[in-house]
Amino acid sequence: MNRDIFITFEGGEGSGKTTQVKKLAEFLEKKYKMSCVLTREPGGSEGAEKIRDIALKGNVNCWDATTEALLMFAARRDHFVKVIKPALAEGKCVICDRFADSSYAYQGYGYKEKGVPLKDLDNLYKMVLGDFKPSITFVLDLPVEVGLDRAKKRDVVSNRYEQMKLDFHNNLRNAFLKIAKENPERVFVIDATQDIDQIHNEICDIVSKRIDSWS
Amino acid sequence: MNRDIFITFEGGEGSGKTTQVKKLAEFLEKKYKMSCVLTREPGGSEGAEKIRDIALKGNVNCWDATTEALLMFAARRDHFVKVIKPALAEGKCVICDRFADSSYAYQGYGYKEKGVPLKDLDNLYKMVLGDFKPSITFVLDLPVEVGLDRAKKRDVVSNRYEQMKLDFHNNLRNAFLKIAKENPERVFVIDATQDIDQIHNEICDIVSKRIDSWS
Repeated sequence: MNRDIFITFEGGEGSGKTTQVKKLAEFLEKKYKMSCVLTREPGGSEGAEKIRDIALKGNVNCWDATTEALLMFAARRDHFVKVIKPALAEGKCVICDRFADSSYAYQGYGYKEKGVPLKDLDNLYKMVLGDFKPSITFVLDLPVEVGLDRAKKRDVVSNRYEQMKLDFHNNLRNAFLKIAKENPERVFVIDATQDIDQIHNEICDIVSKRIDSWS
Repeated sequence: MNRDIFITFEGGEGSGKTTQVKKLAEFLEKKYKMSCVLTREPGGSEGAEKIRDIALKGNVNCWDATTEALLMFAARRDHFVKVIKPALAEGKCVICDRFADSSYAYQGYGYKEKGVPLKDLDNLYKMVLGDFKPSITFVLDLPVEVGLDRAKKRDVVSNRYEQMKLDFHNNLRNAFLKIAKENPERVFVIDATQDIDQIHNEICDIVSKRIDSWS
């Protein structure tokens, strides 16, 4: 099999992405003997983690949406060049906790009229990634209140986004659903109120079908 | 007088920009009773200085040109929104040690075929600054060897750019001269091998003429 497998997970705070990333990697390693690289955004490379650090910490309004988008795409470029591309070139499967859809949701739709125009985000995308895109993206969808409550219980220190108002998080949720609707070949919405194993099974079915269709 | 005065200084390492920024501010405060804000890029605001820190430190090749350009424009956006725009709105004169022309020179022309395409830099410029541009830009021009020698004597720790090869710095010099040629209304090339006061007088003449023409 000679296809790049780059799978991304998207969704609001506390939607269970990190757990599902790990479980999917175990599944792929077991069923398909694939070597998986687990990574995350913002971050995932040494340089990108430094950018993550200044992007996510600090005052809730310390960056405007444009600065934030530029920081996220700077981190993404470093991550792409140093980690994602080399791993795929070695035939590894890459599974990433958040990717470019998050920039559209957070810096674009999340801030509504104060957000970065889609045209600018498209330009950044092309500059940083060219035609590259995930093979499959899972949106773990659940009501905003449930997710934030989970995130609060999990994190000792909350990040800037968790501190934003409910409106912002509802915009995010709608943004991911919109992105899914516009990219039905790539993006799958999963009901993240289900229990962990149900979610995992749904994800494995979709990934298996895709991989088996290639052989 | 109701015009924004935003003056930028460009040029290679060790070309004497910082000195001339200070001397010009003293002149404008004395002759025109202007209140001047002295600033620099990358940096100039709290957030942008943090970005500067990760952009300029580290291994000489730690970022590719695209990542570097995104970091520079992220820093520029924060600096513009938090410092430059508010100062100009208060009627202050802003004098800046490096600005967007440096991004074209360093991340565009400096890396030659590995540099960021001009179209991408133009998109970043528009996204970050819209139609805003400096009233006057001075390029302090001098042979690369002379500038690097001065920078070496000045700096305890050299930044990433000073460590780059002579070729890179010659590309920079040519880039600034090209930018000057393409923007004759805005950009003035000053022979920076002259002594400090000669350079200062030449700069004051140009700025005075511009300001006097407005009254």
